Amino acid sequence: MRIGELSRSTGVTVPTIKFYLREGLLPPGEATSPTQAQYDESHVRRLRLVRALVEVARLPLTSVRAVTSAVDDPPESLHDLLGIAHDALPPEVADDVDVSAAASVVEDLGWDVHPGSRALRQLAAAMSALDGLGLPASPDVVARYGRAVEPIAAREIEQVPTGSGEEAVTYVVSGTALYEPVIAALRRLAHQDLSARRFGPRP
Amino acid sequence: MRIGELSRSTGVTVPTIKFYLREGLLPPGEATSPTQAQYDESHVRRLRLVRALVEVARLPLTSVRAVTSAVDDPPESLHDLLGIAHDALPPEVADDVDVSAAASVVEDLGWDVHPGSRALRQLAAAMSALDGLGLPASPDVVARYGRAVEPIAAREIEQVPTGSGEEAVTYVVSGTALYEPVIAALRRLAHQDLSARRFGPRP
Repeated sequence: MRIGELSRSTGVTVPTIKFYLREGLLPPGEATSPTQAQYDESHVRRLRLVRALVEVARLPLTSVRAVTSAVDDPPESLHDLLGIAHDALPPEVADDVDVSAAASVVEDLGWDVHPGSRALRQLAAAMSALDGLGLPASPDVVARYGRAVEPIAAREIEQVPTGSGEEAVTYVVSGTALYEPVIAALRRLAHQDLSARRFGPRP
Repeated sequence: MRIGELSRSTGVTVPTIKFYLREGLLPPGEATSPTQAQYDESHVRRLRLVRALVEVARLPLTSVRAVTSAVDDPPESLHDLLGIAHDALPPEVADDVDVSAAASVVEDLGWDVHPGSRALRQLAAAMSALDGLGLPASPDVVARYGRAVEPIAAREIEQVPTGSGEEAVTYVVSGTALYEPVIAALRRLAHQDLSARRFGPRP
């Protein structure tokens, strides 16, 4: 397909596609003349991934490149590839946050998690914010939240498409980033319903 | 107690307490001399609330004032008071977002939610972001997330302290804002564990 069709089938504008080509985030098409090239399904998949990383997860271009390089030269297991994508997701957390309390909750949950994972530092930072405000989260309470989110995460991981590394990474990056606000909003809406039942005027 | 003790028992610095007094976020103490005043437990509670609104929920001062005014002149039910606090929490969402799809999910869940609630607009905005990226969330999928977060929210609402409106609002504001990153990080960690089991190298 020509660049116009690639644009139509991915929803990415032609100038943006040209920018991704210049930045090396999208491999060049097959040249059919000095000014034209042909693209195929691999370009469609790559553009979906780049769009997920840039527009959904809002990664800086250097992180986008780190993820696309990992897709092009994948580590041994799909788990390791997904780990690289996951670790690139914002928010960034300082490297020197003390993860020991968070790691101990994860161990209590029986979860197998890389000790250098960004999500572990995110949990540690959130727990330390609670501490700093005099509202420390006990390991039991945090573990209870962990058990509550486990079925959500299980369903998500079951549904990862495994046709290609690209599709798997696109799914995980988009799903992780886009459903966080969905979950946060639903929790608040559930609060409101339950608050109406507990504290509302008697009907 | 004098202002120094108020500072020590709340962890809020004296200059910040003076700023809150000037801004009317903290009612004045009882004057004991032209330059000194006495404060009591009501000031401790109010400072905890203001701190939760400013430092935890990061509300702008006008929104902080809206919440403290509602605490001082409370609506009929505690549910309405908590609703005012909840609706002040970020992130802000445009007023004109179409909430019909989100409202229909909430109705399917059987939840009693105010149609003008900010959380409903947040859910609508998150669902519309998914649509815009060609990854529409079906009402069934969103409802499934809703049922998954319901037990989390139920436990949280059960534990709201009801001694005073101030304590209830402080708890709800801090808990809602501070546990969102905890839940997000735990979901990512659960992904990692489940991905290791599904896609990792065989042991």
